[in-house]
Amino acid sequence: MTFAVTILGSNSALPILTRNSSAQILNHYNSLYLIDCGEGTQIQFLKYKIKFNRINHIFISHLHGDHFFGLIGLLSTYHLMDRKDRLNIYANPEIEELINFQLKVAKTELRYPLIFHPINSEKSEMILDDDKITVKTIPLDHKIPTSGFVFIEKQRDRNIKKEFLAIEKVPIHKFKSIKAGDDYINSDGKIYKNKDITLAPPKPRSYAYCSDTKYYEKIIPHIKNVDLLYHEATFMKDKERNAIEKFHSTTVDAANIAKKANVKKLIVGHYSARYKKLEPLLDEVKEIFKNSFLAEDGLTFNVDK
Amino acid sequence: MTFAVTILGSNSALPILTRNSSAQILNHYNSLYLIDCGEGTQIQFLKYKIKFNRINHIFISHLHGDHFFGLIGLLSTYHLMDRKDRLNIYANPEIEELINFQLKVAKTELRYPLIFHPINSEKSEMILDDDKITVKTIPLDHKIPTSGFVFIEKQRDRNIKKEFLAIEKVPIHKFKSIKAGDDYINSDGKIYKNKDITLAPPKPRSYAYCSDTKYYEKIIPHIKNVDLLYHEATFMKDKERNAIEKFHSTTVDAANIAKKANVKKLIVGHYSARYKKLEPLLDEVKEIFKNSFLAEDGLTFNVDK
Repeated sequence: MTFAVTILGSNSALPILTRNSSAQILNHYNSLYLIDCGEGTQIQFLKYKIKFNRINHIFISHLHGDHFFGLIGLLSTYHLMDRKDRLNIYANPEIEELINFQLKVAKTELRYPLIFHPINSEKSEMILDDDKITVKTIPLDHKIPTSGFVFIEKQRDRNIKKEFLAIEKVPIHKFKSIKAGDDYINSDGKIYKNKDITLAPPKPRSYAYCSDTKYYEKIIPHIKNVDLLYHEATFMKDKERNAIEKFHSTTVDAANIAKKANVKKLIVGHYSARYKKLEPLLDEVKEIFKNSFLAEDGLTFNVDK
Repeated sequence: MTFAVTILGSNSALPILTRNSSAQILNHYNSLYLIDCGEGTQIQFLKYKIKFNRINHIFISHLHGDHFFGLIGLLSTYHLMDRKDRLNIYANPEIEELINFQLKVAKTELRYPLIFHPINSEKSEMILDDDKITVKTIPLDHKIPTSGFVFIEKQRDRNIKKEFLAIEKVPIHKFKSIKAGDDYINSDGKIYKNKDITLAPPKPRSYAYCSDTKYYEKIIPHIKNVDLLYHEATFMKDKERNAIEKFHSTTVDAANIAKKANVKKLIVGHYSARYKKLEPLLDEVKEIFKNSFLAEDGLTFNVDK
């Protein structure tokens, strides 16, 4: 019943030895969703024992190198590993031409279907909706077209109470309608109200990824009340001017967004390479939003039911 | 007086945790020449303390990803580091379009001049010739256009013997011609033969890089007698068929080339990911060519004067 985010890269554009560039795995019941893919992401997979073949969907926020330079290497590795399963990439439309050109010069014809799903970064769209999860984009405010992503578990069926099944012989073909909320009428005509014979399912869990962006209140409706928010905090508050100039956020920006959106938990990351110690950043964030954590390469954040 | 090769990546295409994909630094008197640039090469720079700004020339053997996927990240990092010096890239002509397209989508205009020098992989050409070093290409036999490189130190001037300078007051403006090989006539008309008053300079050192290639005897004239040869050995000898099919070499191929070219020392590398322990590969190489060594990430091979 996992719903957990593993940080594979927590630094911004300039690389440092202890922090890779952006990449994360959302693990939902052992289906892995890759969010951004900076250079060296596949090496992080090896380091943190991420199973390559559990990934069928890759989401790229924008086409700055620290968010996608590892993608072509990963796609090539899947080819060499003889992958057969379809792989979906959700990204700015230009990525398709770029990847195809790279494959062309290497004379590589991928052994698996690679499907590009172009993102329109001007508006929020549902880009994935299967039986387990829904993913929507969040328009962000960065130097180039950029989208965040919000992942929401599908509402699960109600659970039929064991005590009820012990006293009533319910035909199996009725289970589905009861789980969906219907009352049950037994062969004697006795009516059981649904609320008396079922338990509500766990509330769907949600995760929002917002990187890169300047402070941008328009994202708030999209991330309202999420269980877990990752928001970039490239700079500390004394570098607010740098943040504005470079279309990035400060610690204070990230915390204010988390507070106004009433999220349950905040992770900050995408740190400027200038910060060797991160505790001072966390202190600034926590002053405004207490339930905050630092992204660090290899850390996993679980969202409980 | 350094002439040394540092291995930054010794594995072939599929990444493993302990061996990065291909990249090497040739250090010649603190000028660094980068040869190939697999994904994560800039992280290897940080790990092995390679000075980014000592590199002005980058040589890419061919456009398979494990030899160049780290290039765009490195170029972007130079941009972010505010590099001003001109950077030269020697590679297959298609790389220019590819890099420019990547920069375009990221809306990046590099802050430094980036000069592309297209390689014609069909023939051997001199691609760099400055006051310190000469670099020539070596056509290799691989699936796509591929070139090796041979680096040869420039012949240095003769050294004037200290004993001679102690007995004769030689005007400084005469030094250059004596060092170039001229005899010296003093103010009394006495003739000193050049061979009596100078010492021969050290023999120019040389390094050849041959990766990727199948066994290909046509490279021998280009690498004849070099001090140090890096030759790929993707497979052990029992996988000769794989090697031929994939246009790669075995341990035996590399050793035979080294022997026939009469090189002084051989390094093998570009190992298939299947080999966890490398000693068995070295054993096979040494059976044919004794002065052989394994490339391993972080190892430096010095060529003495």
